[in-house]
Amino acid sequence: MAKTIKDSTPKQDGFRFPGEWERQTQCWIGWPFRTDVWPGGAKPAQKAIVEVVKAIAPYEAVTVCVPREHYKAARAAIPEHENVRVVELSCDDGWLRDIGPTFLVNDAGEVRGADWQFQAWGGLEEGFYFPWDQDDLAARKICELENVDRYRAPLILEGGAIFSDGEGTVLVTESSELVHNQNKMSKEEIEGYLLEYLGAEKVIWLKNGVAYDSVWGHVDLVCTFTAPGEVLLAWSDNPADENYELMRENYEILANATDARGRALTIRKLYLPDPMYFTAEEIEAFDVVEDTTSFEVGDRIGGSYINYFLGNGVVVVPQFGDETYDERALETLREVFPDRAVVGVASRAILMGGGCIHCMTQQQPAGR
Amino acid sequence: MAKTIKDSTPKQDGFRFPGEWERQTQCWIGWPFRTDVWPGGAKPAQKAIVEVVKAIAPYEAVTVCVPREHYKAARAAIPEHENVRVVELSCDDGWLRDIGPTFLVNDAGEVRGADWQFQAWGGLEEGFYFPWDQDDLAARKICELENVDRYRAPLILEGGAIFSDGEGTVLVTESSELVHNQNKMSKEEIEGYLLEYLGAEKVIWLKNGVAYDSVWGHVDLVCTFTAPGEVLLAWSDNPADENYELMRENYEILANATDARGRALTIRKLYLPDPMYFTAEEIEAFDVVEDTTSFEVGDRIGGSYINYFLGNGVVVVPQFGDETYDERALETLREVFPDRAVVGVASRAILMGGGCIHCMTQQQPAGR
Repeated sequence: MAKTIKDSTPKQDGFRFPGEWERQTQCWIGWPFRTDVWPGGAKPAQKAIVEVVKAIAPYEAVTVCVPREHYKAARAAIPEHENVRVVELSCDDGWLRDIGPTFLVNDAGEVRGADWQFQAWGGLEEGFYFPWDQDDLAARKICELENVDRYRAPLILEGGAIFSDGEGTVLVTESSELVHNQNKMSKEEIEGYLLEYLGAEKVIWLKNGVAYDSVWGHVDLVCTFTAPGEVLLAWSDNPADENYELMRENYEILANATDARGRALTIRKLYLPDPMYFTAEEIEAFDVVEDTTSFEVGDRIGGSYINYFLGNGVVVVPQFGDETYDERALETLREVFPDRAVVGVASRAILMGGGCIHCMTQQQPAGR
Repeated sequence: MAKTIKDSTPKQDGFRFPGEWERQTQCWIGWPFRTDVWPGGAKPAQKAIVEVVKAIAPYEAVTVCVPREHYKAARAAIPEHENVRVVELSCDDGWLRDIGPTFLVNDAGEVRGADWQFQAWGGLEEGFYFPWDQDDLAARKICELENVDRYRAPLILEGGAIFSDGEGTVLVTESSELVHNQNKMSKEEIEGYLLEYLGAEKVIWLKNGVAYDSVWGHVDLVCTFTAPGEVLLAWSDNPADENYELMRENYEILANATDARGRALTIRKLYLPDPMYFTAEEIEAFDVVEDTTSFEVGDRIGGSYINYFLGNGVVVVPQFGDETYDERALETLREVFPDRAVVGVASRAILMGGGCIHCMTQQQPAGR
């Protein structure tokens, strides 16, 4: 009952990309299953995702998307709960943030979806795996399941590469869109499509993501809006960590930026975990296959607490086993969101796949 | 958000199987794709199903269920329409009537589903194909998609084997449930489960289905309720057709029956098409594979106009190219349903797979 809108753009039609703090109808979440992307047959990541589902479910509805082959096992592993739904939905991997639609709303409270082109973070040359055809269909299928009209955007983009203040400002990084330029477009061209398909007026370009992330510096590990005019920036006080310099560079950009409404930004810091590295036990538990990016013992893993999920009444925060910064992240987020439950979920198993809680989830705003 | 109800039955919980004329929210429909079940690579059947979708869509919402492999082709073949939704849903074949949930309602207007065990019309010994594991999951997936609580019934049954008057009476055939006894149960045991899981008080047992159907005499080719106290019975005046005797036998049963409320039944006749046979062209266009029932040139095909789909405001009626009875079926159904549009759809291509429009569809009652 959803249609594909071909003759106009979200901006022309009065749709905008809301902030993640705006009311949601549900959270979409992927099911990890690839044995070349997740160690241990993806079982540890599945267990962690079940904990994420259990953390969100008391606060809002969750739909878990599972390919046919894994449906029975996933349905058995995910508890029956009045707020949890498991649906068959194929993908090549489960990163709903990057492959799902970017849901948009208008002033009348209607919801539509932006369906970006997806090529596994780099296509044939730099993509993480091949093929990605099922991933690229996921946004369309989700929109149709929900009877949400959809724009197929003429831009290769992942949902994790963009944040919005809901009031016309979009946050991206140069590292994911210009240095790693899947679209082979100029900055102006990319910015033009972002504004047009997110119904926005201004793009703030950060320089780099966090060091050693697997997604070319996606903004959803480095900096997010927490309210209009307020951002939360990943941070490190350790000069031996590359992030020390990278985050200061981003800080300068943010400190000198104004948003679409002309406001200066209030910048809060969210401390990164200490550097993490793949262990031998972890590396041995991956299937190594042609066409899929692989890692080695001692390779650094680019995790960040910025990669939390923000839902109605709840913030679900990755915990990496860091004795200092796990707790500090929870404290910071309790200060930022005093009216929401802040729940930590052990997420190193999710991080093994190259992203974390925010990367696996996608909020659907309530609109009306 | 749907749960599996394990400690009670629909009857205990006050749920009943409504008549098909009661208000519906949508029609579920399968997508034919098996090249061993449908000739010509299933393309002719797909085209016919698109016509069925187009016939229903002006009157009510339709959800077409398509396995992953066929999603892109199906999505391209099915027109975008505000009332039509295409979803990924695996099945071993597309017979939504037989594999989908039997939707139930209660007096408060709530909707639940009865999820029967499905073994491809006969399991390892007499089933039409193997395996059938995806078919057997379809009802659960559909209930979960719709947030409908579900009873998993301890009975092997297909939705095409049962009709209801919505007021406590169920119509079945002995041929599909007793002669072809998948459950290896007594008549009393089967009747007990039917009453319990359909929230009914009385079962009327017809003798046989129409001759040469592919589903062991399913009631949905031979006789249906059109309103409480009113049935429509397949009929033939041709003594050379086996149906001549079979339908008279059923007539006697119906003429001497009373329903759950003690009413005698008004019996209308719906004339069957003249006998139809597989042509050489058709038989050559099937893939013949081990484990799947196959046919030969000149085998009779058991079609029936009883196998129509009844929706809000519309009756979609199979047309077999019969010069006499196609039109007569439309006339009869216009008399029976004077307030609905009666639309014929050329359906021999669907019939090739062993059933017709009713077999491929499943109504979801509106309840509240």
